[in-house]
Amino acid sequence: MTKHRPPNLAALDAHWRAANYLSAGQIYLLDNPLLTEELRPEHIKPRLLGHWGTSPGLNLVHTHLNRAISERSLDALCVWGPGHGGPAVLANSWLDGSYSRVYPDVGRDAAGMARLFRQFSFPGGVPSHVAPETPGSIHEGGELGYSLAHAYGAAFDNPGLLVACVIGDGEAETGPLATSWHSNKFLDPVHDGAVLPILHLNGYKIANPAVLARLPEPELDALLRGYGHEPLYVTGSDPRKVHQTMARAMDHALDRIAEIKRTGVRASWPVIVLRTPKGWTGPAEVDGEPVEGTWRSHQVPLASVREDPEHLRQLEAWLRSYRPQELFDADGRPTGQVLACVPDGERRLGANPHANGGLLTRELPLPPLEHFAVPVDKPGATLHEPTRVLGGLLAQVMADTAERRDFRVVGPDETASNRLGALFEVTGKAWQAEILETDEHLARDGRVMEILSEHLCQGWLEGYTLTGRHGLFSCYEAFVHIVDSMVNQHIKWLKTSRSLSWRAPVPSLNYLLTSHVWRQDHNGFSHQDPGFVDHVLNKSPEVVRVYLPPDANTLLSVADHVLRSRDYVNVVVAGKQPCFDWLSLDEARVHCARGAGIWEWAGTEGRDRAPDVVLACAGDVPTQEVLAAAGLLRRHLPDLAVRVVNVVDMAKLLPREEHPHGMADFEYDALFTPDKPVIFAYHGYPWLIHRLAYRRTGHANLHVRGYKESGTTTTPFDMVVRNDLDRYRLAMDVIDRVPGLAVRAAAVRQTMADTRTRHHAWIRDHGTDLPEVADWTWTG
Amino acid sequence: MTKHRPPNLAALDAHWRAANYLSAGQIYLLDNPLLTEELRPEHIKPRLLGHWGTSPGLNLVHTHLNRAISERSLDALCVWGPGHGGPAVLANSWLDGSYSRVYPDVGRDAAGMARLFRQFSFPGGVPSHVAPETPGSIHEGGELGYSLAHAYGAAFDNPGLLVACVIGDGEAETGPLATSWHSNKFLDPVHDGAVLPILHLNGYKIANPAVLARLPEPELDALLRGYGHEPLYVTGSDPRKVHQTMARAMDHALDRIAEIKRTGVRASWPVIVLRTPKGWTGPAEVDGEPVEGTWRSHQVPLASVREDPEHLRQLEAWLRSYRPQELFDADGRPTGQVLACVPDGERRLGANPHANGGLLTRELPLPPLEHFAVPVDKPGATLHEPTRVLGGLLAQVMADTAERRDFRVVGPDETASNRLGALFEVTGKAWQAEILETDEHLARDGRVMEILSEHLCQGWLEGYTLTGRHGLFSCYEAFVHIVDSMVNQHIKWLKTSRSLSWRAPVPSLNYLLTSHVWRQDHNGFSHQDPGFVDHVLNKSPEVVRVYLPPDANTLLSVADHVLRSRDYVNVVVAGKQPCFDWLSLDEARVHCARGAGIWEWAGTEGRDRAPDVVLACAGDVPTQEVLAAAGLLRRHLPDLAVRVVNVVDMAKLLPREEHPHGMADFEYDALFTPDKPVIFAYHGYPWLIHRLAYRRTGHANLHVRGYKESGTTTTPFDMVVRNDLDRYRLAMDVIDRVPGLAVRAAAVRQTMADTRTRHHAWIRDHGTDLPEVADWTWTG
Repeated sequence: MTKHRPPNLAALDAHWRAANYLSAGQIYLLDNPLLTEELRPEHIKPRLLGHWGTSPGLNLVHTHLNRAISERSLDALCVWGPGHGGPAVLANSWLDGSYSRVYPDVGRDAAGMARLFRQFSFPGGVPSHVAPETPGSIHEGGELGYSLAHAYGAAFDNPGLLVACVIGDGEAETGPLATSWHSNKFLDPVHDGAVLPILHLNGYKIANPAVLARLPEPELDALLRGYGHEPLYVTGSDPRKVHQTMARAMDHALDRIAEIKRTGVRASWPVIVLRTPKGWTGPAEVDGEPVEGTWRSHQVPLASVREDPEHLRQLEAWLRSYRPQELFDADGRPTGQVLACVPDGERRLGANPHANGGLLTRELPLPPLEHFAVPVDKPGATLHEPTRVLGGLLAQVMADTAERRDFRVVGPDETASNRLGALFEVTGKAWQAEILETDEHLARDGRVMEILSEHLCQGWLEGYTLTGRHGLFSCYEAFVHIVDSMVNQHIKWLKTSRSLSWRAPVPSLNYLLTSHVWRQDHNGFSHQDPGFVDHVLNKSPEVVRVYLPPDANTLLSVADHVLRSRDYVNVVVAGKQPCFDWLSLDEARVHCARGAGIWEWAGTEGRDRAPDVVLACAGDVPTQEVLAAAGLLRRHLPDLAVRVVNVVDMAKLLPREEHPHGMADFEYDALFTPDKPVIFAYHGYPWLIHRLAYRRTGHANLHVRGYKESGTTTTPFDMVVRNDLDRYRLAMDVIDRVPGLAVRAAAVRQTMADTRTRHHAWIRDHGTDLPEVADWTWTG
Repeated sequence: MTKHRPPNLAALDAHWRAANYLSAGQIYLLDNPLLTEELRPEHIKPRLLGHWGTSPGLNLVHTHLNRAISERSLDALCVWGPGHGGPAVLANSWLDGSYSRVYPDVGRDAAGMARLFRQFSFPGGVPSHVAPETPGSIHEGGELGYSLAHAYGAAFDNPGLLVACVIGDGEAETGPLATSWHSNKFLDPVHDGAVLPILHLNGYKIANPAVLARLPEPELDALLRGYGHEPLYVTGSDPRKVHQTMARAMDHALDRIAEIKRTGVRASWPVIVLRTPKGWTGPAEVDGEPVEGTWRSHQVPLASVREDPEHLRQLEAWLRSYRPQELFDADGRPTGQVLACVPDGERRLGANPHANGGLLTRELPLPPLEHFAVPVDKPGATLHEPTRVLGGLLAQVMADTAERRDFRVVGPDETASNRLGALFEVTGKAWQAEILETDEHLARDGRVMEILSEHLCQGWLEGYTLTGRHGLFSCYEAFVHIVDSMVNQHIKWLKTSRSLSWRAPVPSLNYLLTSHVWRQDHNGFSHQDPGFVDHVLNKSPEVVRVYLPPDANTLLSVADHVLRSRDYVNVVVAGKQPCFDWLSLDEARVHCARGAGIWEWAGTEGRDRAPDVVLACAGDVPTQEVLAAAGLLRRHLPDLAVRVVNVVDMAKLLPREEHPHGMADFEYDALFTPDKPVIFAYHGYPWLIHRLAYRRTGHANLHVRGYKESGTTTTPFDMVVRNDLDRYRLAMDVIDRVPGLAVRAAAVRQTMADTRTRHHAWIRDHGTDLPEVADWTWTG
């Protein structure tokens, strides 16, 4: 056992009291920050907002982390799960000077303290939660469940980093957190950093006891050991004793971590269980009801301070109980004792560059796409699985980052199923548990991460990219909805970060959505949902980007783009099944740069003839059906001028004022015409196209086909027929909508209708698609 | 210890072999179901789909549940978490005759067996997963994570029911499942049934080992004990021995459950850990690679049976290894030995009425709304918190179901915060863990359920309503996105159920979304997201309903409606903050029945004068702002004819062909006019209104204001100003859009713009809203 200097308990306690004072001050005080005069109602904020309950515990953790960092010269981050305890983290950041570093107008003096107090939860000020505005944070803590996953994400491939993570007992009840404990089976003691979870059991949520806090001690102990941890308990309400126990536990935990990292084999990692009263050191009783140590201290324990002199008196007594005059000098600066254990410079939790990860980001080495592109001499002559082609590119990036280790691919057990198996030629799947002889591709140091939890995939990758590294999440399209709410929060984080000059841009969070709605031959209805695009496009346009590459080379070009980008959430939808190659790499690059364009070779409009109709498409399957429909029309109605438009970048359809990628009206009209019928075959819910294009001149002529929740276990072509997205239906739509065509082309239309009828009979009898569909190729 | 009859091992094994045979047959055979002739390629399906890997384990569980049910005359359900093992559950349902009961064309004979095989995963046939089409099921198992929550939902308030639940080791990695184990802290041994989890560790997911399967045994044991369970291990690959161990474990578990229920106090509930090989009894090796006992048996172990004679030979040997001639007579009927342990009638897992819960549903006793309505003599004269008013109604329903126990309210720790505290006067919060003196409203038999996991709230309520009982999920609006994907699956379930004549309608799943986007004074940006409505409205129109009641009485009327309804997902968005009362109960009823209507008293159009402009609104805060805007216009531009339209039922805006509630065009035009400007103030993302109304005649004149991701911790009025939804902005929109008004009303418009400027300065200085806004009331 390592010998440690005995902790300077007086200094620890002074720092803790200072942080507690500053936390309460933020919730209550508009003025008189140092209590230099008697507290009066006008010193109190008109709206009392904030969460006191968790703050003293967070302050204790921060104080003791400060000591450990200073003593051991640790490179450390902390993820504050109870992020609604914003006052605590802000208080500590102000104390160590990292707050004033990025916000010089909030200096470490009396005027700065006054500003710190006033701005908290004040309109135009700072949010009451830990947020992007908070120095040292990579985690909002507004929506609960993701702290531990973020902590692990930050630790992967950062072998020198310690990531502490405070988990509130409310958050511990969430599903994502409950499975996040298993992340330790994916943490390589050699190539990754360490995570030190601190389970803060203060006993209550908003209105109820917390489940883990009320387990019999042996049950909780078994649970944590079952999660692969060695619990260290810090329990009490006497600050002096708790400081001692906490210092000892922290030392024990850090010694143990050092030992595990030294030996390099998976073992039980330490977890600290901190049991202290909710609202500790706050008012014990208010209006005759117990407050400290109960759920009543969750938010603002004294609610009527401006109106009720007794509450005001209680508040003043409470604030003075920290003895502010011992903690701050006359100018409001923290005393030497308060700062005795506080680390310096980038060692400060509020100033560690990993928490402003863009500072550490290196450009990803992206190889020339020519090495992976498929040759396309003429459109539609060959087939490739787009994601398998992408797999080649990703594998090369993985190989080229073997030393740097700043690129990971995550997914719920589907990397190979999604045809990205080439990755396994250059890296393995991260795995620290037992490995058997029959296993393939498992590796202690693998940088592909698979677990059957979309929440963990998302949380890990968020933590990884927010600390400046690169990655991709490949996911079944339908099940990415599992992380809808996490994506919301990440987009909000990025939106706010972009407005902060001191936050460096971080690599984008990139989704590859595959095994999509049109090819759920195995799984059917439950696996069919293309609505993630709708969800994402509700969010801040400065952050969200959606791409639907129609073939292998366009997927490569899109991938190259998103992997270079910063501060975005990029959604790429692409199939894994064999798909016709339409564009050469050069054509793909041009097409992707434009985001949407006319495919002249697929249509029949002449140079001097305006189109009679536009067949538009977005997505690989709709593109195939549109080209097949165009072929049918060319054959049966050769004098009809058909234009084919393909859209890769969905935001192009939005007006320029609504999205940075949006087309100007004249551009939109040049593609889609202001007045001709447009039949738009879209990968997802058809009304999304209307929602994007409703302001356009030709909107009344826009007719969209897409997925309308008509799904089951069936063949690919039957799926498009069921949803009226098939080539015959599209061609019939054209005939129905081009003025004057209905009569002239009645016989042609009937042939198409008959083919659809034939399809229904054929599939009922054979269980396969019509031969003419199964064998179809584009003939130009 | 109870003495049990020794199990009839030969009968158990015969049943198990029969189920295995039928499972494999479904995956492979198009014909020759009884192998009466040598297997030829044309007997094989053209597309081989399905999941073999988990099927033998599921069959084992089903076989042993059959025995236990028969011996003990149990009333039992089983939730099959690995629901992609559809062949197994279908096989068992066919064996016990419950399949033929609902699908008489699939009889329990050779012809029926042939149909059973052919229809599986065949276009137009049945899905490869357990699904609504599967008798005895309340759980799809397509998206993983919810089996155990569903099982608990089914068990609540069903004291005589045993709910077995098979959890695959893949599913066990998901977050929702990981926290579902804690459901036992909410299960009352007296008033609830029992849940018997069976953790099926077959070792692998699609492509990887599973985490729990690779834990050292003591770690797994600790984990399950930590979850509050007593593990019983059934491990092996020798069927004879496994049958013995499994029978013993099942007996032990059921004895233990009986004992816990007898004593009525929380204790460690049993869990069976079943460790058998993946793809057990299937091909040991294929093409030189090990298959049985590895991830390679996850789906179709022999993939090229039609093409490769060696695969065909292997398949035949595999199928014959079950000795079908001993299991089925010449007519294809299961032999007496196979059926020896199979229960009869409603005891069969495929025929238990709880799994077709609508059969057991009783009308909820809904009291007259008059008892709870707020008196409204004139609009806008009084304020009430709508959800508090609703709380009175819910409390009465709770009281009136005290004996029946078929109504529950779930929510993530927010029932009181959402102002539904009246419930606690008549019931408690379910809680089986320790209760302290300072706790309030905790009760062993409480029917309000609070846990900080939206996943559990949703999963419990799904299980509860699918077994025929009633309930409400009250949730912070932003965080209901956490269950987006679960809602998808539930809607898909209901959509399919509705098409099955034998499935009785079940009570709807009802959401109360409150603490909504406009009133996140405390929490700010991370708590602001009104997009759930968008998400839900993408889904099957026959299932989804969305209501935005603008005040207390309309909320009552909507609640009464949704609580009576069946087979819907009803989303109700309503604030908890004081809100003006606009409508009397009678008016509210009429308004809700119409779904949208003109509020004549709020507008200025005369009987003989068409409106110049329509001010439309949906949602409580937009309604308030629209009425304030109407008041401003009335005062400043008295000769302008303004119509005010309020929309409660969002689907009204859709065309009649798109949703059963949709308005015909003439109705829409009668409300909104075909040609006047419409300024629509909407609660959520503004483009939703366009997506609903884009086909309407007057769509080009529709201008929508709503939430545009501009959020922070601020005052209510500042929120609407930031998002351009405030009364001044709306009034300015009117001036800008009514032809000819811009010049005439320039001065008025300037006053409004100046007020907005004044607002910005005031809030910066005072942190509160302008007095004229804070003190505003409707003056008619």
